Amino acid sequence: MNLETPKGMKDSLPEEEIVKQNIIRRLTSIFELYGFSPMDTPAVEKWDVLSSKYAGGEEILKETFKLSDQGKRSLGLRYDLTVPFARVVGMNQKMKMPFKRYQIGKVWRDGPIGMARYREFWQCDVDVVGAKTMGYESEILFLAARFFKESGLKPLIRINNRKILNDIMEYLKIEKKLRDTVILSVDKLAKAGKEEVTKELTGKGIDKDKIIELLKIITPSGTNKEAIKQLKNLIPDSIGLTEISDVLDRCNGLDVVFDASLARGLSYYTGTIIEIFLKGSKVTSSVCAGGRYDDLIGKTLGGGEFPAVGISFGLSRIYDAIKETGRKTVSDLYVIPIGTDCTKIVEKLRDLGVKTEMDLSGRGPSKNMKYANSQGIPFVAFVGEEEQKSGKLKIKDMESGKESVVGIDEVPRLILGT
Amino acid sequence: MNLETPKGMKDSLPEEEIVKQNIIRRLTSIFELYGFSPMDTPAVEKWDVLSSKYAGGEEILKETFKLSDQGKRSLGLRYDLTVPFARVVGMNQKMKMPFKRYQIGKVWRDGPIGMARYREFWQCDVDVVGAKTMGYESEILFLAARFFKESGLKPLIRINNRKILNDIMEYLKIEKKLRDTVILSVDKLAKAGKEEVTKELTGKGIDKDKIIELLKIITPSGTNKEAIKQLKNLIPDSIGLTEISDVLDRCNGLDVVFDASLARGLSYYTGTIIEIFLKGSKVTSSVCAGGRYDDLIGKTLGGGEFPAVGISFGLSRIYDAIKETGRKTVSDLYVIPIGTDCTKIVEKLRDLGVKTEMDLSGRGPSKNMKYANSQGIPFVAFVGEEEQKSGKLKIKDMESGKESVVGIDEVPRLILGT
Repeated sequence: MNLETPKGMKDSLPEEEIVKQNIIRRLTSIFELYGFSPMDTPAVEKWDVLSSKYAGGEEILKETFKLSDQGKRSLGLRYDLTVPFARVVGMNQKMKMPFKRYQIGKVWRDGPIGMARYREFWQCDVDVVGAKTMGYESEILFLAARFFKESGLKPLIRINNRKILNDIMEYLKIEKKLRDTVILSVDKLAKAGKEEVTKELTGKGIDKDKIIELLKIITPSGTNKEAIKQLKNLIPDSIGLTEISDVLDRCNGLDVVFDASLARGLSYYTGTIIEIFLKGSKVTSSVCAGGRYDDLIGKTLGGGEFPAVGISFGLSRIYDAIKETGRKTVSDLYVIPIGTDCTKIVEKLRDLGVKTEMDLSGRGPSKNMKYANSQGIPFVAFVGEEEQKSGKLKIKDMESGKESVVGIDEVPRLILGT
Repeated sequence: MNLETPKGMKDSLPEEEIVKQNIIRRLTSIFELYGFSPMDTPAVEKWDVLSSKYAGGEEILKETFKLSDQGKRSLGLRYDLTVPFARVVGMNQKMKMPFKRYQIGKVWRDGPIGMARYREFWQCDVDVVGAKTMGYESEILFLAARFFKESGLKPLIRINNRKILNDIMEYLKIEKKLRDTVILSVDKLAKAGKEEVTKELTGKGIDKDKIIELLKIITPSGTNKEAIKQLKNLIPDSIGLTEISDVLDRCNGLDVVFDASLARGLSYYTGTIIEIFLKGSKVTSSVCAGGRYDDLIGKTLGGGEFPAVGISFGLSRIYDAIKETGRKTVSDLYVIPIGTDCTKIVEKLRDLGVKTEMDLSGRGPSKNMKYANSQGIPFVAFVGEEEQKSGKLKIKDMESGKESVVGIDEVPRLILGT
């Protein structure tokens, strides 16, 4: 047997998975703190659903894993969590609105592999459907800020509004059929720089003067309020400007930056666009992104009004940003029996909430110490007849080397500080 | 678009998913309490790995979803978590033994659909590889008992040993080639009854006298010790009897029943067999099962000694057993603003750990109450100008109808009892 994972997919061994599970736990608890409820959908969807005209589009279908069941039904692995969300809303149209859900799950894309690009990856999405108020944009931004704060990371939150970009296109009289592709180029400004974007736009047939004006307009100077004022002089009736002011007002106390060049690749956004980066991190791509898509669900379902807004947290990138080193197991304490059966003592420790592993192989103390060390387990206890009798344990702190003799009830305080 | 999930797969809406997530959280925290560490593997495996001779076998391959990537590589969706576990052990043979891991994930089987039989379902597995001691059987049984106790369920733990069944086959001189199929029939005894099993064994060509003797042998009477003693008279040298005594001795304090008729369908078990049922529940199938498989991994990898033991918890059946009713969201409190912006108050409540949802639609109080009621949210707060000024909230208990006026800091005590 050729021992390999499929190309572009990888295992997550404990050292990595412990950190990932902690991130997922933190996300979950914050999602719930904001009243989003968990939902789960199958990893497999009918091909009809995935290939619906207003779903992910043709590009993404090329990268969708196709399969069929014994009944020859055409199926595929989901490429995101938004299309399944739209399907669920469509199948449950009597559900109470607004419907707030979160979903954390894997998605698959059979595309090119590269730096941090895999064919199987996690998405952690929160969305609300059935409400037009910008109050939800604000709620989602507070939620994201809370998550990054609790994770010890410093978020840089950038927002924009699709309607502003559209109004700027109108103001500059850029040809309708070119607008989407021009917006795609503009979106690269922060990463690629003015020169590169100018070159790209020239290639797309935009006049030099217009490019200069466009780049000036989308990089207004000063505070959020000053930037909005400058744009208001050019596009005074822009609903997008009203909406973004509304969002910014509601986000009082949060550090949110209005960035008129922000566009995001996906064309289904209709209003607010959100992208979150990390300050002072080696991870330079966005770690969280989303926005408002008021038309997507209704169009996908072939009718009805389903305004929606949501964001998606990128687990792998957040993992890269906060991964710790050393711990290869979750165990806090490794118990080494010296010729005794420690089951009772170990069960008592677990009753007290200490994550406890015990040697059952009967190997010698030095081999056992080596094992505990290799796994990064922070504390070790030797338990012989004396300890069994006295009920006191000699516990060694593997980092400092310090040994303490304590009663079983005192172990949680020593190890967990509780 | 035809709004359907694939045949045999289903969505889990919040009402169901909240309960499932709680079960998964409890399992996770208990797995870690026993020093098992999380691991994750891709949902997709290479076809070579899934179809390896000692993996799941031909029957299961027929039910395996097949797919391929753009590079025409042959792949499949995993049908269990044990084969991926074996692959990981094979790819990381330098890892420290014993290696204790848990994995919670979905698996897929394209088989017939029926009562509680789906084509996508969750498995929650704990396994340890690299140790022959029965100490791990005991550890896993303590772990399972702890989970069911914390879940408010009453487990009936039944164990047996494959070697005992083999020794009984030898003692009765049952033809070698018939032994596996005879054991399969014997396994049905608890469910189908003596008559049915007798009929089946007769059909398989076993003598009437031998069937009567077999059924007598595998249903010894009395306590565990008495049952073992009776069997010892027939098969005095059985290693299986020594092993099961060892497990039972180590499980002192747990309610474990030795059942010589227990076999489990899978042929890869080599020693201890475990099956856990629920007392006083409508769920009559086993909710947790597993055992020792000392040969599977080594054979799969084409060599090497990898003794292993583990169990798998069935999420759907456990869900059926402990599902609660009514709650359709995780929110503890629903805040209804009366002409004010409640963002600050709601953020304060979330700081205090109260899972809070707020109306942002601006609809009237009675519609809002209807919504909160329909979602089973236990508490509601109206917040107008007066409340904003005084910092006191009027909170209504939706079940009792009782209203209390409390300061924000007192809300957690009122709602969560903390």
